[in-house]
Amino acid sequence: MECNVPTDIVFSFSGLAVRGGRRGPHRDGWGLCLYEDRAVRAFLEPTAAAASPLARFLRENPIKTLLAVAHVRKKTRGKASLANTHPFVRELWGRTFVFAHNGTIKNARAHRLGRFHPIGETDSEHAFCLIMDALDRAFPRYPRTRRALWEAVAEVGGRLGKNGTFNFLLGDGTHLFARCATKLHYIVRKAPFRQATLSDEDIVVDFAAVTTPSDRVAVVATMPLTRDEVWTQGKPGHMWVFDHGALQATLRS
Amino acid sequence: MECNVPTDIVFSFSGLAVRGGRRGPHRDGWGLCLYEDRAVRAFLEPTAAAASPLARFLRENPIKTLLAVAHVRKKTRGKASLANTHPFVRELWGRTFVFAHNGTIKNARAHRLGRFHPIGETDSEHAFCLIMDALDRAFPRYPRTRRALWEAVAEVGGRLGKNGTFNFLLGDGTHLFARCATKLHYIVRKAPFRQATLSDEDIVVDFAAVTTPSDRVAVVATMPLTRDEVWTQGKPGHMWVFDHGALQATLRS
Repeated sequence: MECNVPTDIVFSFSGLAVRGGRRGPHRDGWGLCLYEDRAVRAFLEPTAAAASPLARFLRENPIKTLLAVAHVRKKTRGKASLANTHPFVRELWGRTFVFAHNGTIKNARAHRLGRFHPIGETDSEHAFCLIMDALDRAFPRYPRTRRALWEAVAEVGGRLGKNGTFNFLLGDGTHLFARCATKLHYIVRKAPFRQATLSDEDIVVDFAAVTTPSDRVAVVATMPLTRDEVWTQGKPGHMWVFDHGALQATLRS
Repeated sequence: MECNVPTDIVFSFSGLAVRGGRRGPHRDGWGLCLYEDRAVRAFLEPTAAAASPLARFLRENPIKTLLAVAHVRKKTRGKASLANTHPFVRELWGRTFVFAHNGTIKNARAHRLGRFHPIGETDSEHAFCLIMDALDRAFPRYPRTRRALWEAVAEVGGRLGKNGTFNFLLGDGTHLFARCATKLHYIVRKAPFRQATLSDEDIVVDFAAVTTPSDRVAVVATMPLTRDEVWTQGKPGHMWVFDHGALQATLRS
């Protein structure tokens, strides 16, 4: 979720959490990262979100944010452990980057690591370290020319994604980067707001009641989280860039 | 807290949380980092621990760990914000390091940063980045010779602590390093266990009822957390190293 005004992610996270072990096989861990400026609150557990008291606490005690990345895990490589739980977090240029991946990269370990090293055993975290390293080598500090950063992320994402399935979300405290390898959807909610119903749960929210006319909220998910809104499907080999609750660019990746 | 068997930190954290805004001036933030292997759960808020629903949730839903670092903040430099909340977290050599500081370093910014950069504005995080950088330059990977690592931490801690008050706790997933500049205390609880009462709260725990004879738990705090146990006071300019719930070394620093 990426917004132009602090927003709580309870509605979307409720939909995602259901897929974390109750109505889906993604029961091997969950994580929710909520930015405050360049820092992040990261809540992670190597257990099913649907049964987690902490996930329930976060739904009942919402924290507003401009940028959030959440993930539910179905393990393919690497056991269910905290170290293997997405989103992964690293600091670069004095900002926090978070990364969540859906899919498997076959040859991630063939690429040599630089200064960032995985803590766990997943291909996903290995790939994240490679992305961080590529950005670190490309720019001495957070680039003023935003498009140069977007292109660098798209380039390394495409390169790593060649031999595998590399759907990912990457947050840098300002942007949400969303690469589509196989499936990804987004929606931008803005005025006039209406109501929406979760796909997997009979939860309805009337966004008109909880927003102001200038609010804009972008939400990206593997599959649409609501059943009565129109989501835009991603094209394989493309990456979206969101900022201020709006799609800023679609790059080949 | 550093232990030889997974232990929950509820008793000690309850004592610390009381000092976070109710019986002490440390109301500008709190953090609790709990290791699982080389990864960490980091709970952070830029608000008073004593009034925090999340801190209460963690007391009511304890998580066992071999190594935990907690902090309550009284701000000296830098506003109350998530980015300025201790403990700070970084990855080095594929492990998570966490750092909490009590005191002020006057000339932290005079030391030039390397690859680690502060996200917030505190001298504390700046100093942590300098420690991480010194370790990174000293060793290509996590050193097999543990004493070499201990000495490197003591050396950089002493160097940075020359112009200021540099009481700190540093965790690397294996060790707890605890440097004393002005005040620091520790206790190692082991068999025969007895009961203890928090200094700031009428909470009593009978450790004999919740331990086995081989358990060992080291707890370090600025001031003793209990009123009926004997804590050992630190000597300024010295650093303790804990592993397996025992004091392994005291180094000049």
